[in-house]
Amino acid sequence: MRYPLGFFSFGRNIGIKDNTLDFSVIYSENVCQAAAVFTRNNYPGAPVIVGRDHIQNGLLQAIVINSKNSNVATGEKGVQDSYQICEEIAKSLSIKITDVLPSSTGVIGVPLPMEKILSACRDAKQHLKPGNLEEVAEAIMTTDTRKKIAYREITKDKETGVIFGMAKGAGMIEPNMATMLSYILSDYLPESGDLKGLLRKAVDHSYNCITIDSDTSTSDTVVLMCSGILGTLPDEVFYRHLESIAIELSKKIARDGEGATKLLELTVKGARDDNQATKIGKSILNSPLIKTAIYGGDPNWGRFVMAVGKVFDEPIPYDKLFIYLGGIPVKAADTITKQKIADYLKKEEEIVITVELGSGKTEKTFWSCDLTEGYIKENAYYTT
Amino acid sequence: MRYPLGFFSFGRNIGIKDNTLDFSVIYSENVCQAAAVFTRNNYPGAPVIVGRDHIQNGLLQAIVINSKNSNVATGEKGVQDSYQICEEIAKSLSIKITDVLPSSTGVIGVPLPMEKILSACRDAKQHLKPGNLEEVAEAIMTTDTRKKIAYREITKDKETGVIFGMAKGAGMIEPNMATMLSYILSDYLPESGDLKGLLRKAVDHSYNCITIDSDTSTSDTVVLMCSGILGTLPDEVFYRHLESIAIELSKKIARDGEGATKLLELTVKGARDDNQATKIGKSILNSPLIKTAIYGGDPNWGRFVMAVGKVFDEPIPYDKLFIYLGGIPVKAADTITKQKIADYLKKEEEIVITVELGSGKTEKTFWSCDLTEGYIKENAYYTT
Repeated sequence: MRYPLGFFSFGRNIGIKDNTLDFSVIYSENVCQAAAVFTRNNYPGAPVIVGRDHIQNGLLQAIVINSKNSNVATGEKGVQDSYQICEEIAKSLSIKITDVLPSSTGVIGVPLPMEKILSACRDAKQHLKPGNLEEVAEAIMTTDTRKKIAYREITKDKETGVIFGMAKGAGMIEPNMATMLSYILSDYLPESGDLKGLLRKAVDHSYNCITIDSDTSTSDTVVLMCSGILGTLPDEVFYRHLESIAIELSKKIARDGEGATKLLELTVKGARDDNQATKIGKSILNSPLIKTAIYGGDPNWGRFVMAVGKVFDEPIPYDKLFIYLGGIPVKAADTITKQKIADYLKKEEEIVITVELGSGKTEKTFWSCDLTEGYIKENAYYTT
Repeated sequence: MRYPLGFFSFGRNIGIKDNTLDFSVIYSENVCQAAAVFTRNNYPGAPVIVGRDHIQNGLLQAIVINSKNSNVATGEKGVQDSYQICEEIAKSLSIKITDVLPSSTGVIGVPLPMEKILSACRDAKQHLKPGNLEEVAEAIMTTDTRKKIAYREITKDKETGVIFGMAKGAGMIEPNMATMLSYILSDYLPESGDLKGLLRKAVDHSYNCITIDSDTSTSDTVVLMCSGILGTLPDEVFYRHLESIAIELSKKIARDGEGATKLLELTVKGARDDNQATKIGKSILNSPLIKTAIYGGDPNWGRFVMAVGKVFDEPIPYDKLFIYLGGIPVKAADTITKQKIADYLKKEEEIVITVELGSGKTEKTFWSCDLTEGYIKENAYYTT
């Protein structure tokens, strides 16, 4: 695993809830150009409020993250807490407070255990190790069942650098954004310096195309930090790798959806525009009847028709609508075909769905997971 | 149980799928004034297409219903089948074909077993019994676990008549309308004769306020038939009873949601208008995180904040937002209060939720149910 140059990090346990890793810091030797995208929920968590403030100048040098507590709905005190965490980290690392971005993920509405966290902030410097980002990827997990990492090595002028991404998130996920945290770090910079534009575009084609349960978290954050130690890459090269990492991480989030047994990849083709594709794509992937049918291996194509038809303001003529599961047309399928589809649904862990609308030329891909008893168990008994 | 005068009916098994009741007819001796409201899904079932045609003149004399097969997504042939069913019933009962309304509910995309159904239509007259509507309420069930009946006796000039309603529906339910069928019959007429206006208004305050799983069926139908044998009632009296029956049936549908263990009744208060109340109300009751939390008896109020906050275009200032469970304020509740709420959630079968927005004076009530493993099991293995 290759880490971008100049980055140090750690993940450790400070006892916020149990004995798993719950506190981590990412630090760059030099000040990075940076951009971030946050939740659209009207009640953003305190770290989002502080993050929006600190990212304004487009510079970051450190990220400080705790899991097990989201610092959401904690009022003015919560916002002060997040500022104070940045301040302590800035002191410990001798950097500017506005160059620190805070993240918190976990339960809503409970004040942060500030004594533990501030003490850990003061000790931050001594725990930092070069690279070491896998440890952070583990420390940011909540109900995730596995670490989510994606990176691309890029060679230029005989030197090899990397764009390295990590993410967490498994529930309350319909990013716009969702309790999803994702950090993407690089020793390269895009030539134009337009990190914000490139990040936004990549997010629109990846994180914003996943839905696990239609709920939108109050904490979602995606951060891009570029040290530029290895110089610049042409925007198109940088973007291609950035988008590819963002999509890989998004698929990992969807596949690891709470209780999920399968990844669903839906491509809407022949849409009039992005808006139509998104409305119909989300209607399909948010339908609990479709998600349970796929879980049960049931080729219940009527539910797809229903889900397209319930987008009242986007009527698609019935004879223009085509639906494929694993490449097999399912509308009005006969018994033999249905059996084939059932076999496909039962056997595969990645279910490929294609829906053709016949309204235009736009194509867009979305990801989700099946809906199982595991989701119910996890969320009925995830205690506050 | 009192039935409206002049109505005859039956429910019987004709072997469409198994040996439960699957075919029923409601017949009135005289031609009734009638109105109906249908699904907004863009792919309505064939019976909905035929029903819209036959209700145009505001008159009905019979309803013919089969369960176990919805005759949806069955093309032009399906529509012809529904017309033919009406024709056979009209012949058997010596009434006009346009005075027959057909309904079908069950699996999507499978042609109706027409031989069985037409034969049953030809025999319809001999099976009719006076009143007998409980049998119909049973015959229209699919995944319902119980019959849904509500009626109000109304005495006028020493004679007592009745408005009698029945309904079925347990999944694919976010009526706008949902696989919900409901028939409301009376021996009274509203004075104004405006059945359509009264029915629409009642539906907006009842069936359109329930959601079980956010999916909108292709078959939803609510029919009102008034024989007028006992004369007229003032509109306000007729409406009051009609709405009360519609709400009672709606609650029964929500309570009987697939896998449900609890009825949720949410009142949104202090909304700016009906539209704001509906958007926020539906966002709360469609949130799987809220529905699983209530199932688990978890006083997870942060999820309510999240669900209000994810209605991006209706921002509610955080300090104006109040949330009550069983009358107990839950925002920032302390440990003792949380325990009280947990006890309430675990003990009660009807959970009362109140959300105050502080934006205006509109108040609206919505119904749903909790989300359990039972929903997953029922829908993962409900075979096509």
